[in-house]
Amino acid sequence: MPETQTKNPSFETRIPEGDNLHRQVCSDCGFVAYENPKVVVGAVVTHGDLILLCRRAINPRSGFWTLPAGYMELHESAEAGAMREAWEEARAKIAIDALLGAYTIPRLSQVQLIYRARLTDPAISAGPESLDVGLFAWADIPWDDLAFPSVRWALTHFNEVKDRTHFPAFSNPPGETGDH
Amino acid sequence: MPETQTKNPSFETRIPEGDNLHRQVCSDCGFVAYENPKVVVGAVVTHGDLILLCRRAINPRSGFWTLPAGYMELHESAEAGAMREAWEEARAKIAIDALLGAYTIPRLSQVQLIYRARLTDPAISAGPESLDVGLFAWADIPWDDLAFPSVRWALTHFNEVKDRTHFPAFSNPPGETGDH
Repeated sequence: MPETQTKNPSFETRIPEGDNLHRQVCSDCGFVAYENPKVVVGAVVTHGDLILLCRRAINPRSGFWTLPAGYMELHESAEAGAMREAWEEARAKIAIDALLGAYTIPRLSQVQLIYRARLTDPAISAGPESLDVGLFAWADIPWDDLAFPSVRWALTHFNEVKDRTHFPAFSNPPGETGDH
Repeated sequence: MPETQTKNPSFETRIPEGDNLHRQVCSDCGFVAYENPKVVVGAVVTHGDLILLCRRAINPRSGFWTLPAGYMELHESAEAGAMREAWEEARAKIAIDALLGAYTIPRLSQVQLIYRARLTDPAISAGPESLDVGLFAWADIPWDDLAFPSVRWALTHFNEVKDRTHFPAFSNPPGETGDH
Protein backbone atom coordinates (compact mmCIF):
# COMPACT_ATOMS: atom_id res chain seq x y z
CA MET A 1 0.00 0.00 0.00
CA PRO A 2 1.13 3.62 -0.42
CA GLU A 3 3.28 4.78 2.47
CA THR A 4 2.15 8.39 2.79
CA GLN A 5 -1.16 9.95 3.72
CA THR A 6 -2.06 13.47 2.65
CA LYS A 7 -3.53 15.70 5.32
CA ASN A 8 -7.01 17.03 4.59
CA PRO A 9 -6.64 20.83 4.51
CA SER A 10 -9.94 21.31 6.34
CA PHE A 11 -8.65 19.41 9.38
CA GLU A 12 -7.54 21.38 12.43
CA THR A 13 -5.60 20.28 15.51
CA ARG A 14 -7.56 20.41 18.76
CA ILE A 15 -8.60 18.35 21.81
CA PRO A 16 -12.02 16.74 21.21
CA GLU A 17 -14.53 16.72 24.07
CA GLY A 18 -13.79 13.89 26.51
CA ASP A 19 -10.26 13.40 25.24
CA ASN A 20 -6.95 14.59 26.67
CA LEU A 21 -4.74 14.83 23.57
CA HIS A 22 -4.75 16.94 20.44
CA ARG A 23 -6.35 15.20 17.46
CA GLN A 24 -7.04 16.03 13.83
CA VAL A 25 -10.62 17.32 13.72
CA CYS A 26 -12.48 18.36 10.55
CA SER A 27 -13.50 22.01 10.90
CA ASP A 28 -16.44 21.36 8.57
CA CYS A 29 -18.14 18.37 10.16
CA GLY A 30 -16.33 17.62 13.43
CA PHE A 31 -15.06 14.22 12.26
CA VAL A 32 -12.15 13.15 14.47
CA ALA A 33 -9.41 11.44 12.46
CA TYR A 34 -7.54 9.58 15.19
CA GLU A 35 -3.96 9.03 14.19
CA ASN A 36 -2.57 5.77 15.46
CA PRO A 37 0.76 4.06 15.23
CA LYS A 38 0.98 1.83 12.18
CA VAL A 39 2.00 -1.80 12.19
CA VAL A 40 4.62 -3.10 9.79
CA VAL A 41 4.79 -6.88 9.44
CA GLY A 42 7.64 -8.73 7.81
CA ALA A 43 10.09 -11.57 8.06
CA VAL A 44 13.67 -12.69 7.94
CA VAL A 45 13.14 -15.50 5.45
CA THR A 46 15.73 -18.22 5.00
CA HIS A 47 16.41 -20.87 2.40
CA GLY A 48 19.01 -23.13 3.93
CA ASP A 49 21.74 -20.73 5.11
CA LEU A 50 20.65 -17.96 2.75
CA ILE A 51 18.55 -14.92 3.63
CA LEU A 52 15.96 -13.30 1.36
CA LEU A 53 16.37 -9.58 0.67
CA CYS A 54 14.46 -7.29 -1.68
CA ARG A 55 15.79 -4.18 -3.42
CA ARG A 56 13.18 -1.46 -3.07
CA ALA A 57 11.56 -0.07 -6.22
CA ILE A 58 9.73 2.66 -4.28
CA ASN A 59 10.57 5.51 -1.98
CA PRO A 60 11.59 5.93 0.72
CA ARG A 61 15.01 4.38 0.07
CA SER A 62 14.40 3.16 -3.46
CA GLY A 63 17.34 1.07 -4.64
CA PHE A 64 18.28 -0.11 -1.13
CA TRP A 65 17.88 -3.60 0.27
CA THR A 66 15.21 -4.53 2.77
CA LEU A 67 13.35 -7.46 4.27
CA PRO A 68 9.98 -8.35 2.77
CA ALA A 69 7.74 -6.24 5.02
CA GLY A 70 4.97 -3.69 4.78
CA TYR A 71 1.91 -2.24 6.41
CA MET A 72 -0.45 -4.73 7.97
CA GLU A 73 -3.92 -4.56 6.46
CA LEU A 74 -7.28 -4.63 8.22
CA HIS A 75 -8.70 -7.98 9.32
CA GLU A 76 -5.58 -10.05 8.89
CA SER A 77 -3.38 -11.61 11.55
CA ALA A 78 0.16 -10.30 11.90
CA GLU A 79 1.51 -13.63 10.69
CA ALA A 80 -0.80 -13.63 7.65
CA GLY A 81 0.36 -10.08 6.90
CA ALA A 82 4.01 -11.12 6.96
CA MET A 83 3.20 -13.99 4.59
CA ARG A 84 1.27 -11.65 2.28
CA GLU A 85 4.14 -9.14 2.16
CA ALA A 86 6.65 -11.89 1.30
CA TRP A 87 4.42 -12.82 -1.61
CA GLU A 88 3.80 -9.24 -2.76
CA GLU A 89 7.42 -8.14 -2.63
CA ALA A 90 9.32 -11.32 -3.49
CA ARG A 91 6.73 -13.78 -4.82
CA ALA A 92 7.92 -15.89 -1.90
CA LYS A 93 5.87 -18.58 -0.22
CA ILE A 94 6.93 -18.78 3.42
CA ALA A 95 6.21 -20.61 6.66
CA ILE A 96 6.41 -18.53 9.85
CA ASP A 97 8.54 -20.00 12.63
CA ALA A 98 8.65 -17.49 15.51
CA LEU A 99 8.44 -13.80 16.39
CA LEU A 100 11.97 -12.44 16.03
CA GLY A 101 11.44 -8.82 17.05
CA ALA A 102 8.81 -6.31 18.13
CA TYR A 103 10.44 -2.98 17.34
CA THR A 104 9.17 0.59 17.65
CA ILE A 105 10.21 3.60 15.58
CA PRO A 106 8.70 6.43 17.68
CA ARG A 107 9.50 9.17 15.14
CA LEU A 108 7.44 7.34 12.53
CA SER A 109 4.91 6.00 15.06
CA GLN A 110 5.60 2.59 13.66
CA VAL A 111 5.55 -0.82 15.32
CA GLN A 112 7.38 -3.53 13.42
CA LEU A 113 6.62 -7.19 14.01
CA ILE A 114 9.36 -9.17 12.27
CA TYR A 115 9.09 -12.96 12.19
CA ARG A 116 11.58 -15.69 11.46
CA ALA A 117 10.41 -17.73 8.49
CA ARG A 118 11.62 -20.06 5.77
CA LEU A 119 10.82 -20.46 2.10
CA THR A 120 8.46 -23.34 1.42
CA ASP A 121 9.19 -23.09 -2.32
CA PRO A 122 12.62 -22.01 -3.66
CA ALA A 123 11.10 -19.89 -6.44
CA ILE A 124 11.30 -16.13 -5.79
CA SER A 125 11.01 -13.10 -8.06
CA ALA A 126 10.62 -9.35 -7.74
CA GLY A 127 7.08 -8.14 -7.05
CA PRO A 128 5.90 -4.69 -8.21
CA GLU A 129 7.51 -2.86 -5.26
CA SER A 130 10.91 -4.55 -5.72
CA LEU A 131 13.63 -3.93 -8.32
CA ASP A 132 15.30 -7.21 -7.51
CA VAL A 133 15.24 -10.00 -4.94
CA GLY A 134 18.06 -12.25 -3.82
CA LEU A 135 19.17 -14.95 -1.42
CA PHE A 136 22.27 -13.80 0.46
CA ALA A 137 24.85 -15.69 2.47
CA TRP A 138 25.56 -13.94 5.77
CA ALA A 139 28.99 -12.81 4.48
CA ASP A 140 27.40 -11.22 1.41
CA ILE A 141 24.71 -9.10 3.09
CA PRO A 142 24.99 -5.56 1.68
CA TRP A 143 25.22 -3.83 5.08
CA ASP A 144 26.04 -0.44 3.57
CA ASP A 145 23.05 -0.60 1.25
CA LEU A 146 20.31 -1.63 3.69
CA ALA A 147 17.20 0.53 3.49
CA PHE A 148 16.45 1.05 7.18
CA PRO A 149 18.12 0.64 10.60
CA SER A 150 15.45 -1.89 11.59
CA VAL A 151 16.57 -4.17 8.74
CA ARG A 152 20.01 -4.22 10.34
CA TRP A 153 18.47 -4.90 13.77
CA ALA A 154 16.41 -7.82 12.52
CA LEU A 155 19.29 -9.37 10.60
CA THR A 156 21.64 -9.00 13.57
CA HIS A 157 19.08 -10.45 15.97
CA PHE A 158 18.34 -13.27 13.54
CA ASN A 159 22.02 -14.17 13.49
CA GLU A 160 22.26 -14.11 17.31
CA VAL A 161 19.63 -16.82 17.64
CA LYS A 162 20.07 -18.69 14.37
CA ASP A 163 21.04 -21.92 16.16
CA ARG A 164 18.18 -21.73 18.66
CA THR A 165 14.73 -23.22 18.26
CA HIS A 166 13.21 -21.06 20.98
CA PHE A 167 14.27 -17.54 21.89
CA PRO A 168 12.72 -14.40 23.39
CA ALA A 169 11.50 -11.77 20.95
CA PHE A 170 13.90 -8.87 20.61
CA SER A 171 13.00 -5.21 20.96
CA ASN A 172 15.00 -2.19 19.76
CA PRO A 173 18.73 -2.46 20.46
CA PRO A 174 19.51 -0.37 23.58
CA GLY A 175 19.33 3.34 22.84
CA GLU A 176 18.32 2.88 19.21
CA THR A 177 15.19 4.59 17.91
CA GLY A 178 15.54 3.83 14.21
CA ASP A 179 16.45 7.38 13.24
CA HIS A 180 19.84 6.43 11.82
CA MET B 1 -8.30 7.41 24.36
CA PRO B 2 -11.82 6.83 23.07
CA GLU B 3 -12.23 3.42 21.48
CA THR B 4 -14.56 4.25 18.62
CA GLN B 5 -14.18 6.43 15.56
CA THR B 6 -17.20 7.89 13.79
CA LYS B 7 -17.23 7.56 10.01
CA ASN B 8 -17.38 10.84 8.10
CA PRO B 9 -20.64 10.69 6.10
CA SER B 10 -18.98 12.29 3.07
CA PHE B 11 -16.51 9.40 2.78
CA GLU B 12 -17.09 6.76 0.13
CA THR B 13 -15.49 3.34 -0.34
CA ARG B 14 -13.37 3.00 -3.49
CA ILE B 15 -9.93 1.99 -4.76
CA PRO B 16 -7.66 5.06 -5.02
CA GLU B 17 -5.40 5.39 -8.07
CA GLY B 18 -2.25 3.29 -7.67
CA ASP B 19 -3.73 1.18 -4.88
CA ASN B 20 -5.25 -2.31 -4.98
CA LEU B 21 -7.67 -2.25 -2.05
CA HIS B 22 -10.83 -0.34 -1.23
CA ARG B 23 -10.21 2.68 1.03
CA GLN B 24 -12.32 5.40 2.60
CA VAL B 25 -12.09 8.38 0.23
CA CYS B 26 -13.72 11.78 0.84
CA SER B 27 -16.13 12.46 -2.03
CA ASP B 28 -15.62 16.22 -1.47
CA CYS B 29 -11.84 16.56 -1.56
CA GLY B 30 -10.38 13.15 -2.44
CA PHE B 31 -8.64 12.75 0.95
CA VAL B 32 -7.82 9.06 1.50
CA ALA B 33 -8.37 8.00 5.11
CA TYR B 34 -6.30 4.82 5.28
CA GLU B 35 -7.62 2.53 7.94
CA ASN B 36 -4.93 0.57 9.67
CA PRO B 37 -4.87 -2.03 12.38
CA LYS B 38 -4.56 -0.45 15.81
CA VAL B 39 -1.99 -1.36 18.42
CA VAL B 40 -3.01 -2.12 21.99
CA VAL B 41 -0.17 -2.13 24.53
CA GLY B 42 -0.47 -3.51 28.02
CA ALA B 43 1.07 -5.71 30.67
CA VAL B 44 0.62 -8.57 33.07
CA VAL B 45 1.93 -6.73 36.13
CA THR B 46 2.98 -8.61 39.22
CA HIS B 47 3.66 -7.70 42.82
CA GLY B 48 5.27 -10.76 44.34
CA ASP B 49 2.90 -13.61 43.43
CA LEU B 50 -0.05 -11.27 42.85
CA ILE B 51 -1.35 -10.03 39.49
CA LEU B 52 -2.77 -6.57 38.84
CA LEU B 53 -6.24 -6.41 37.30
CA CYS B 54 -8.51 -3.44 36.62
CA ARG B 55 -12.30 -3.43 36.56
CA ARG B 56 -13.40 -1.45 33.51
CA ALA B 57 -15.40 1.75 34.02
CA ILE B 58 -16.04 2.15 30.29
CA ASN B 59 -17.58 0.19 27.48
CA PRO B 60 -17.03 -2.22 25.92
CA ARG B 61 -17.32 -4.64 28.84
CA SER B 62 -17.76 -2.10 31.61
CA GLY B 63 -17.67 -3.84 34.99
CA PHE B 64 -15.43 -6.69 33.81
CA TRP B 65 -11.82 -7.26 34.76
CA THR B 66 -8.93 -6.60 32.41
CA LEU B 67 -5.21 -6.03 32.27
CA PRO B 68 -3.97 -2.45 32.23
CA ALA B 69 -3.82 -1.91 28.44
CA GLY B 70 -4.99 0.53 25.82
CA TYR B 71 -4.30 2.09 22.48
CA MET B 72 -0.70 3.02 21.79
CA GLU B 73 -0.29 6.73 21.08
CA LEU B 74 1.80 8.40 18.39
CA HIS B 75 5.52 8.83 18.97
CA GLU B 76 5.87 6.50 21.93
CA SER B 77 7.58 3.14 22.12
CA ALA B 78 5.40 0.08 22.75
CA GLU B 79 7.05 -0.37 26.14
CA ALA B 80 6.46 3.28 27.08
CA GLY B 81 2.84 2.88 26.03
CA ALA B 82 2.37 -0.13 28.30
CA MET B 83 3.88 1.84 31.20
CA ARG B 84 1.61 4.81 30.43
CA GLU B 85 -1.50 2.62 30.38
CA ALA B 86 -0.58 1.04 33.73
CA TRP B 87 -0.38 4.54 35.17
CA GLU B 88 -3.59 5.79 33.53
CA GLU B 89 -5.72 2.80 34.47
CA ALA B 90 -4.26 1.69 37.80
CA ARG B 91 -1.94 4.52 38.91
CA ALA B 92 0.71 1.80 38.79
CA LYS B 93 4.40 2.41 38.31
CA ILE B 94 5.87 -0.59 36.51
CA ALA B 95 9.11 -1.96 35.11
CA ILE B 96 8.84 -3.93 31.86
CA ASP B 97 10.57 -7.32 31.89
CA ALA B 98 9.83 -9.04 28.55
CA LEU B 99 7.34 -9.31 25.71
CA LEU B 100 4.80 -11.94 26.78
CA GLY B 101 2.55 -12.01 23.73
CA ALA B 102 1.95 -10.47 20.32
CA TYR B 103 -1.68 -11.26 19.62
CA THR B 104 -3.97 -10.32 16.73
CA ILE B 105 -7.75 -9.88 16.81
CA PRO B 106 -8.52 -9.83 13.06
CA ARG B 107 -12.20 -8.93 13.49
CA LEU B 108 -11.18 -5.76 15.36
CA SER B 109 -8.02 -5.24 13.27
CA GLN B 110 -6.17 -5.05 16.55
CA VAL B 111 -2.60 -6.06 17.42
CA GLN B 112 -1.97 -6.49 21.12
CA LEU B 113 1.53 -6.31 22.54
CA ILE B 114 1.34 -7.54 26.13
CA TYR B 115 4.46 -7.36 28.28
CA ARG B 116 5.43 -9.02 31.54
CA ALA B 117 6.13 -6.36 34.16
CA ARG B 118 6.32 -5.79 37.89
CA LEU B 119 5.21 -3.01 40.19
CA THR B 120 8.07 -0.75 41.24
CA ASP B 121 5.87 0.85 43.91
CA PRO B 122 3.13 -1.11 45.73
CA ALA B 123 0.67 1.81 45.64
CA ILE B 124 -2.13 1.35 43.09
CA SER B 125 -5.54 2.97 42.66
CA ALA B 126 -8.28 3.18 40.06
CA GLY B 127 -7.67 5.66 37.25
CA PRO B 128 -10.56 7.38 35.44
CA GLU B 129 -11.25 4.39 33.14
CA SER B 130 -11.33 1.88 36.04
CA LEU B 131 -14.01 1.21 38.65
CA ASP B 132 -11.58 -0.69 40.82
CA VAL B 133 -8.11 -2.21 40.75
CA GLY B 134 -6.80 -5.20 42.63
CA LEU B 135 -3.89 -7.57 43.15
CA PHE B 136 -5.05 -11.15 42.66
CA ALA B 137 -3.52 -14.45 43.65
CA TRP B 138 -3.66 -16.93 40.76
CA ALA B 139 -6.41 -18.93 42.53
CA ASP B 140 -8.54 -15.81 42.90
CA ILE B 141 -8.51 -14.57 39.29
CA PRO B 142 -12.13 -13.89 38.27
CA TRP B 143 -12.03 -16.04 35.11
CA ASP B 144 -15.77 -15.74 34.50
CA ASP B 145 -15.63 -11.97 34.74
CA LEU B 146 -12.70 -11.19 32.46
CA ALA B 147 -13.40 -8.51 29.87
CA PHE B 148 -11.84 -10.06 26.76
CA PRO B 149 -10.51 -13.42 25.53
CA SER B 150 -7.05 -11.90 25.11
CA VAL B 151 -6.93 -11.19 28.88
CA ARG B 152 -7.38 -14.91 29.45
CA TRP B 153 -4.70 -15.70 26.85
CA ALA B 154 -2.17 -13.36 28.44
CA LEU B 155 -2.84 -14.60 31.97
CA THR B 156 -2.60 -18.24 30.88
CA HIS B 157 0.61 -17.60 28.95
CA PHE B 158 2.04 -15.64 31.87
CA ASN B 159 1.40 -18.61 34.14
CA GLU B 160 3.05 -21.05 31.70
CA VAL B 161 6.35 -19.17 31.85
CA LYS B 162 6.17 -17.66 35.31
CA ASP B 163 9.26 -19.54 36.49
CA ARG B 164 11.32 -18.71 33.38
CA THR B 165 13.57 -15.70 32.94
CA HIS B 166 13.63 -16.01 29.14
CA PHE B 167 10.83 -17.35 26.97
CA PRO B 168 9.54 -16.91 23.41
CA ALA B 169 6.72 -14.43 22.92
CA PHE B 170 3.35 -16.11 22.54
CA SER B 171 0.88 -15.49 19.75
CA ASN B 172 -2.83 -16.35 19.69
CA PRO B 173 -3.65 -19.77 21.11
CA PRO B 174 -4.16 -22.18 18.18
CA GLY B 175 -7.44 -21.52 16.40
CA GLU B 176 -8.40 -18.58 18.61
CA THR B 177 -9.26 -15.25 17.01
CA GLY B 178 -10.48 -13.38 20.07
CA ASP B 179 -14.13 -13.47 19.05
CA HIS B 180 -15.23 -15.39 22.14
